[in-house]
Amino acid sequence: MRSTPRAETFPAQTPAAAQVFTTVLSHGPLTRLEAGRRAGLSPAAVTKAVRPLLAAGYLVEGGDPAGGTGSGEGPVEEARPALGRPAGLVRVNGERALFIGVKATGDELIAVLTDLRCRVRLARRTPLPDRAAAPALASIADLVHELLAHAVESGAPVAGLGIAVSGDVDRAEGAVRYSPFLDWRDVPLAGLAATACGLPATVDNDVRALTVAEQWFGAGAGLSDFAVVTVGAGIGCGLVVHGRVVAGAHGVAGEIGHLVVDPAGPPCHCGNRGCVEAIAGDAAIVARMREVTGHQVPDSAAAVALARQGLPGAREVYARAGEAIGRGLATVANLLGPQRVIISGEGLAAYDLFAEQIREAFTTAAFGSAARCDVQTRPLPFEEWARGAAAAAIQTFITENPARGKG
Amino acid sequence: MRSTPRAETFPAQTPAAAQVFTTVLSHGPLTRLEAGRRAGLSPAAVTKAVRPLLAAGYLVEGGDPAGGTGSGEGPVEEARPALGRPAGLVRVNGERALFIGVKATGDELIAVLTDLRCRVRLARRTPLPDRAAAPALASIADLVHELLAHAVESGAPVAGLGIAVSGDVDRAEGAVRYSPFLDWRDVPLAGLAATACGLPATVDNDVRALTVAEQWFGAGAGLSDFAVVTVGAGIGCGLVVHGRVVAGAHGVAGEIGHLVVDPAGPPCHCGNRGCVEAIAGDAAIVARMREVTGHQVPDSAAAVALARQGLPGAREVYARAGEAIGRGLATVANLLGPQRVIISGEGLAAYDLFAEQIREAFTTAAFGSAARCDVQTRPLPFEEWARGAAAAAIQTFITENPARGKG
Ligand SMILES: [Zn+2]
Ligand SMILES: [Zn+2]
Repeated sequence: MRSTPRAETFPAQTPAAAQVFTTVLSHGPLTRLEAGRRAGLSPAAVTKAVRPLLAAGYLVEGGDPAGGTGSGEGPVEEARPALGRPAGLVRVNGERALFIGVKATGDELIAVLTDLRCRVRLARRTPLPDRAAAPALASIADLVHELLAHAVESGAPVAGLGIAVSGDVDRAEGAVRYSPFLDWRDVPLAGLAATACGLPATVDNDVRALTVAEQWFGAGAGLSDFAVVTVGAGIGCGLVVHGRVVAGAHGVAGEIGHLVVDPAGPPCHCGNRGCVEAIAGDAAIVARMREVTGHQVPDSAAAVALARQGLPGAREVYARAGEAIGRGLATVANLLGPQRVIISGEGLAAYDLFAEQIREAFTTAAFGSAARCDVQTRPLPFEEWARGAAAAAIQTFITENPARGKG
Repeated sequence: MRSTPRAETFPAQTPAAAQVFTTVLSHGPLTRLEAGRRAGLSPAAVTKAVRPLLAAGYLVEGGDPAGGTGSGEGPVEEARPALGRPAGLVRVNGERALFIGVKATGDELIAVLTDLRCRVRLARRTPLPDRAAAPALASIADLVHELLAHAVESGAPVAGLGIAVSGDVDRAEGAVRYSPFLDWRDVPLAGLAATACGLPATVDNDVRALTVAEQWFGAGAGLSDFAVVTVGAGIGCGLVVHGRVVAGAHGVAGEIGHLVVDPAGPPCHCGNRGCVEAIAGDAAIVARMREVTGHQVPDSAAAVALARQGLPGAREVYARAGEAIGRGLATVANLLGPQRVIISGEGLAAYDLFAEQIREAFTTAAFGSAARCDVQTRPLPFEEWARGAAAAAIQTFITENPARGKG
């Protein structure tokens, strides 16, 4: 369902080859020995897996200081080209293929062109004049074609397109089941986009895509268990457990936004009262700020400004939101005991207003040693959501290529 | 840290062999072809893995109607002995080895002797006169020796001992970090018990051990994602995600007992207010029942009796408990989207008093299709906790035997 055209094929003939490549991709330059150790494969199996990847230019011999992961956290090792010696480093040739990632919100499109290592080469942001599926698809295709024109100059093939939207997305089927912000139901987006853009297309839930980006190229690289919590219009959560993103048997997972933290709290669009999202989501904060201050408060930026001005009651709106978020984080820590929780999302712009309450509520509600979980914040540039979509496309390219009969 | 003596060694030389054995153990009689398909191994690899297991008598050729899992849910297939043909069935010879499982609570010990398929042959229950570590260990050793004497008659070797306690248990290190009901801190129980009983010993958290029993021999067999929620003195939760029990990076996982469902609720021993356990745990129900009815209410059985008599307000105590449990279940479903949630524990004796409220609160708080999760109840005979401990011992025996250098 995912793809019609297929410009470029990844030359990994076995799951082991894809695994070795992914290991080198997320860890940076590695010796074959080390890649094998991390991927649980014998040196002979690694050598066999690496050969076609070297031949096709996806891997190159030798490491260099720029060879780390996109997050800059990969090992930085220097070595002379090793001419195939098992001890020599291999690294991913990021220039070998390009990808396009698009995030669609209810009122705009954000798109990036990335290389194979998910480093952003170009980012675009454009309003979405009509959110209905057909015109939105046309807008997406226009934007993709604009980025494709730029890609031509580099000479590298664009090997895939990823599209991320919020809501219930069936990645395997390539369909958006329900996206409240876009008001879409059962849109077979992957097939439509592949046809319109001439690229193999992957669609995924936006938070899950962002989690893939963190797992392969970010603060989750090398961790088997972590969570990404996004704060903004919605409160989202992506979970990696035992090294894999949790998808949920029925398509729902990571829903901390609808954890009830105050049964007497404000009503939520899900039908309950006092959900984390009904207290700490953008719309909830804006609404509460209007009530408390009597001001107009057109948007989140205005709400932040009022709180920073120290208007009576305004800081408490954020304090309450921080407490709700902290309780949500603690629930994840108590249930799953992740190594790390990464807080991200556009709501971090107000982070100074509720950081203390998040931390305090987390510490109070975390049970015993669950409080030792490493809670990090990670500022999210506007193109990060689109980069998540590109990461999903890269993942599809590497792990589901048709050479292995799964495309 | 786990073991000193080692009477019997499991003849699986590779992880693949352990995996094939585990597959046949939890699914019942399988052809080599089917076992390979389920374990993700080639027919040749299965044949190689099966040979030493047949030679040592752990597997036998041919299926029989009694060949299913302990839960009676395994496939029941009939076939004549197949003399090594790849299409012939192989099954686990349950009689080949025996195991002892012990559950220690604050005031009693429960022990079972099981076979390799975790079928209970004998169960014992005895008071624990002194819960301090040294006398408790002596009581455990007495009970184990009593079961060992019975085992001698059968001629099969006893291959391992499992001990389950509630609290923070480091299974890899064989140590009880903290058990509130026993008031133990940092007790290296596995080493001590192995020496005292002359058996390789495994210690695990009681809920996690029960989850292993459900995963290998019960309602979780064949599922990659499920949860076990136990209702009783505490409210516990064991989670299986992507086919493996979640242990938590810092030793804490599955803590739905301390999910706050009512910030204005009764104080909990964890320091918060309105935790699920502070509303629905045995002690909380008994305390609330005293308040509401003015009766003495010495224990849970008395509380159940008062509610069944229809005393004013008594039913509401259970209704409130059911609501808290349902909200806890929904949180698990919203975060992880398991295929199934299994409710168990001694608190099920009162299930008729709160089943409706559990179901209603779960449905209300489950987000979207998370409500489609299959919620089952499973009555828990008193020896079930001890059977969980035996399952942990069986797991250690099969997957961590010293022949593979991991014991
Ligand atoms: Zn809600
Ligand atoms: Zn508590």
